[in-house]
Amino acid sequence: MVDSNREQGQGTIASQELRDIVRQQLQGLLEINDYQGAKVLLQPVQYPDIAEAIEGLPETLQALAFRLLPKDEAIEVYEYLDSTVQQALIDELRSQDVLDLVEQMSPDDRVRLFDELPAKIVRRLLQQLSPAEREITSLLLGCGTGTAGRLMTPEYVALKEGMTGDQALARVRLMAPRTETIYTLYVTDVSRRLTGILSLRELLVAPPEDSIGALMTRDVISVHTDTDQEEVARVIQRYDLLAVPVVDREERLVGIVTVDDVIDILEEEATEDIYTLGGVQSGEDDYFQTNLLTVARRRVVWLFVLLITNTGTSAVISSQEDVLSKVVALAAFIPLLIGTGGNVGAQSSTVVIRGLNTDRLRSMNPMTIVSRELIAGALLGVMLAAVVTVWAFLLERNWQVAIAVGFSLLVISILASTAGSVLPLVFKRLGLDPALMSAPFITTVVDVAGVFVYLQLARAILGLN
Amino acid sequence: MVDSNREQGQGTIASQELRDIVRQQLQGLLEINDYQGAKVLLQPVQYPDIAEAIEGLPETLQALAFRLLPKDEAIEVYEYLDSTVQQALIDELRSQDVLDLVEQMSPDDRVRLFDELPAKIVRRLLQQLSPAEREITSLLLGCGTGTAGRLMTPEYVALKEGMTGDQALARVRLMAPRTETIYTLYVTDVSRRLTGILSLRELLVAPPEDSIGALMTRDVISVHTDTDQEEVARVIQRYDLLAVPVVDREERLVGIVTVDDVIDILEEEATEDIYTLGGVQSGEDDYFQTNLLTVARRRVVWLFVLLITNTGTSAVISSQEDVLSKVVALAAFIPLLIGTGGNVGAQSSTVVIRGLNTDRLRSMNPMTIVSRELIAGALLGVMLAAVVTVWAFLLERNWQVAIAVGFSLLVISILASTAGSVLPLVFKRLGLDPALMSAPFITTVVDVAGVFVYLQLARAILGLN
Repeated sequence: MVDSNREQGQGTIASQELRDIVRQQLQGLLEINDYQGAKVLLQPVQYPDIAEAIEGLPETLQALAFRLLPKDEAIEVYEYLDSTVQQALIDELRSQDVLDLVEQMSPDDRVRLFDELPAKIVRRLLQQLSPAEREITSLLLGCGTGTAGRLMTPEYVALKEGMTGDQALARVRLMAPRTETIYTLYVTDVSRRLTGILSLRELLVAPPEDSIGALMTRDVISVHTDTDQEEVARVIQRYDLLAVPVVDREERLVGIVTVDDVIDILEEEATEDIYTLGGVQSGEDDYFQTNLLTVARRRVVWLFVLLITNTGTSAVISSQEDVLSKVVALAAFIPLLIGTGGNVGAQSSTVVIRGLNTDRLRSMNPMTIVSRELIAGALLGVMLAAVVTVWAFLLERNWQVAIAVGFSLLVISILASTAGSVLPLVFKRLGLDPALMSAPFITTVVDVAGVFVYLQLARAILGLN
Repeated sequence: MVDSNREQGQGTIASQELRDIVRQQLQGLLEINDYQGAKVLLQPVQYPDIAEAIEGLPETLQALAFRLLPKDEAIEVYEYLDSTVQQALIDELRSQDVLDLVEQMSPDDRVRLFDELPAKIVRRLLQQLSPAEREITSLLLGCGTGTAGRLMTPEYVALKEGMTGDQALARVRLMAPRTETIYTLYVTDVSRRLTGILSLRELLVAPPEDSIGALMTRDVISVHTDTDQEEVARVIQRYDLLAVPVVDREERLVGIVTVDDVIDILEEEATEDIYTLGGVQSGEDDYFQTNLLTVARRRVVWLFVLLITNTGTSAVISSQEDVLSKVVALAAFIPLLIGTGGNVGAQSSTVVIRGLNTDRLRSMNPMTIVSRELIAGALLGVMLAAVVTVWAFLLERNWQVAIAVGFSLLVISILASTAGSVLPLVFKRLGLDPALMSAPFITTVVDVAGVFVYLQLARAILGLN
């Protein structure tokens, strides 16, 4: 949410070190019961920094510090607190204070809080809200998690086409204290359908007697209540918007999503991508508040999938044991070969997956991508194989083994870079997240194929059978 | 950059499919020389979508399509084009058209273009710019790449403390067509030092006769010209700002950075993290425009580092060859053990690295993080070892081998999760990017340690020496 203070930043920016000092001083003052001193300390501090300071206090002092804040400031600070601290405060504060707080939060932040609270408490709080706020909150809670409807706030300025510029400006002034943004204005018809859009900039420079209908732009970029939040973020990013209007199935305007929420979403989505790439289930965002058994249970699923794939390597080696028993020196290079292959594959899949997920590769022919990666893999394979062949000879003093190792590395590099580009593309085509074809998975696939290639090549070069 | 049209979105949003159709139709119309038809086609299309359509055209048609755009629209579209297409157009268009284009671009976009153009062309264009634009551009070009000074635009509204609200509003109206944003207003003293800040919202609701000095907020969040762009992005994200003012060493206001630029920076930074995690050098953003030999040369550096680490595994196995030659069945499980260990380590390092790079783990004690990961690794190790022991027995029908495999996996899991959390933390402490301790690196470290643990344990359990 945006409010007039935060739009422009109240208080000077504090570096991490200064913020830590504030937290320590706050704790010191509270411990000696110097509440007046604590109030004065926090006066010039920004809301997000006050929130951080409160989060850093021992639990027993959090509610105490929070109660020192002036009422209007308390709401702002509350919206910046971590959900665990928000919940703790709900338990600690007097129920009238809680109600005042929740009543005055902006609807989008309120819904985010409700998502975290126990159902029983949510039901009680909903009942105690004013009818207007209750209705808005129920509307938002009714939309699916991760959709535009969940993110939006219904606090926008709506104009009518028949208004003059002057009338519109008067309405903006009237609504300003109660809306998320006044910088984009929305024009609706009698049935609340969105018919146009106007920036405050355009309104300010237009002749005051012109009608809104004449000033507004009729082609409006909008999203639906059920649009996925990542798509909402991409729309705001692509068209450099400050806010995007959200309409329901009848094209009626029901809310707006602002750019500040979108920044957080893009960061969440990047974290999700990185987690998937690392073989971690997303939703581990709250990892460090989660029970360790839950963490292990979540992670083990993916590890078992990889383990099953990897039993293939044991089966392959086991079936080729005769080669190894004749030339046991070959075993020394298995980890090196599959490890390097895995790394080559990881590079290819990283570039391709990120390109697909940020739409950078959209306009490229998949065949071009794969053949580029194949050639890159071959080039890398030649360079690496040259070095490894020499190293293998120095270690084992056996040219045949050395050549088998070097030649295998070349083949494995090509396989790995091809797999690293083909598999994400196939997943994309199937409508799945390409990030699932991540480094760990590619590595495991390359392991199985790599061992097979190596032992077969060694068999041929060393003349075993 | 933000302009009044784009702030609110002109034209309706087009899905990917619709955008592809526009591109095909545009190409078709140009090929039959139906320029009027092409103009009509593009009229309701958004600027970023026009830019995408032009990028998708064959090179010979790009300049043709671009020349069809009305002059003011052409500048907007040009700023959205890929830098390669921007450069191609500079070569194709008449030099007067180029000059008009460059003269009218916003300074931040102009500097981004100049960064990509050959020095000779930049010098010529700079000379031909109007003195005012030349001075601004030189100022921005003088700041280091990746700093606030490079990103900022000098097009903001500055007020004086002595103005009344009414006078200020008149000034906003006057400046509106020529500034990036009018929604945050900056107050400076006679020596251009930033003394306060005011949102347009506050100005609109304030009594018209109040002085700006009384209305403004004196505690201003600002950044310096040499502040790193990621830091700028974090400031805007943390404080939910629409723009942040940039001051020079004498605290004089020299420009502002707007939120839309910050979204792109955060995306770039996420890509950089993901690339580092995948063992790809950053700067591969332009990968698909880069020569393949260059790509291979960039990637091979990291592969060689990993290769050298991995020669450790060969050395370890080679030195323990006697164990393998006595029980060759042991070799079958090497890839499975180190592969699984690598995956466990990748999960730990992914969570820790992302946490460090998004400041989520800032307030946590490093010992807590490591011990959590250690316990998680132990839990995962027990679960995986149970399965693997059974699988190993089924494959080799040898309980001693099976127990050696299972027990090794437990030890390797603990090692891997500990290494996956400790190494990024150490790198962070040393002031290096924790993402360098990424999955490929952790995997390789675990390979060496894992092989050693496995063969030593097997030696003990099987009673070999």
